[in-house]
Amino acid sequence: MKKSGKLIVLSGPSGVGKSTVVAKAMEARDDLCFSVSVTTRLPRPGETDGKDYFFISRERFDQMVENGELLEHATYVSNCYGTPRQYVKQQLENGMNVILDIEIQGARQVDEKMPEALKIFIAPPSMAELRRRLSARGTENSETVEKRINRARQELLEADFYDYLIVNDDLECAAQEFQAILTAEGCRFDPEYARHLAGESEICR
Amino acid sequence: MKKSGKLIVLSGPSGVGKSTVVAKAMEARDDLCFSVSVTTRLPRPGETDGKDYFFISRERFDQMVENGELLEHATYVSNCYGTPRQYVKQQLENGMNVILDIEIQGARQVDEKMPEALKIFIAPPSMAELRRRLSARGTENSETVEKRINRARQELLEADFYDYLIVNDDLECAAQEFQAILTAEGCRFDPEYARHLAGESEICR
Repeated sequence: MKKSGKLIVLSGPSGVGKSTVVAKAMEARDDLCFSVSVTTRLPRPGETDGKDYFFISRERFDQMVENGELLEHATYVSNCYGTPRQYVKQQLENGMNVILDIEIQGARQVDEKMPEALKIFIAPPSMAELRRRLSARGTENSETVEKRINRARQELLEADFYDYLIVNDDLECAAQEFQAILTAEGCRFDPEYARHLAGESEICR
Repeated sequence: MKKSGKLIVLSGPSGVGKSTVVAKAMEARDDLCFSVSVTTRLPRPGETDGKDYFFISRERFDQMVENGELLEHATYVSNCYGTPRQYVKQQLENGMNVILDIEIQGARQVDEKMPEALKIFIAPPSMAELRRRLSARGTENSETVEKRINRARQELLEADFYDYLIVNDDLECAAQEFQAILTAEGCRFDPEYARHLAGESEICR
């Protein structure tokens, strides 16, 4: 019996540093991967099917929704995106921890279908600091920044079904906390494993 | 509002390395302390009241049991031992994580009174390895060793109310897992803290 991986739902406002936190964890561990989403939009130059996304038709997408083949799905700017259950299931069975970088609405959908998924929210130390970071990027006007701030605030207030809250004040510290959560969750008491250690069963890990 | 500490119940068979795991964690963090137990036995040379134990009379002990002042208590070789609730409470309020190194019966008593206590069981990688470690000490005859093995086996089978199971195969690894659990538990989602980050309340941490 091989130990299966965990599904990790990761959310947090744009600009909070989610991808850097995950990149640092991936450097340190080889049991982490991102989920590959399905999308109805066309591939951009350089994107590979099955790596960046699974590119599918709208008909196929609607069929997946109807068949319950998606753990969560959403529409942005008339393109549909979703997380294929089968792909995630295979990775988990291979012992990989699978990360879904999704927004809170998608997280709720996953939580309903797989309540055992680990839900981690990454927050900025304050709304003022998030504003500073978003403004420093220089890619958005102040109106868009304020929209993002309001959305981040709203998400934090609605995130109480998440298991963990990491505050990204210091990136190294946030990355360490993320990895500590993965390590700790790997130590969750497992009665079957306890029986094995007591010499009462023959599972192997 | 100051963040309060966590009560940590730590159990595991004699010889499994609990104290070394904790010692390593205490080197790395300054928010960890051991609970000081009350006992009715007399102080041994070098023991200090209030540091090694609170030395109390049998009358006072019985009174503490009756008043519900002990989180757990037990009797060994006609001496009584217990964990004073008030001492633990004070340390927790000071933001310290308080470690109780107790057996599974005591852990059950604590679990009933403070279900929010973190319960961690440290196990040997196998009963054969525990036997090897106990025999290597050379302080106990083989009959006593076998009694300890049987007890360890029984405890593992009854420990399913613990939150975490650390297997002490490699000491460094076990110590890191223990610290990861403390770090992860410090990141548990706290709705009040989330409101604070969203700018909706004024608690400070």
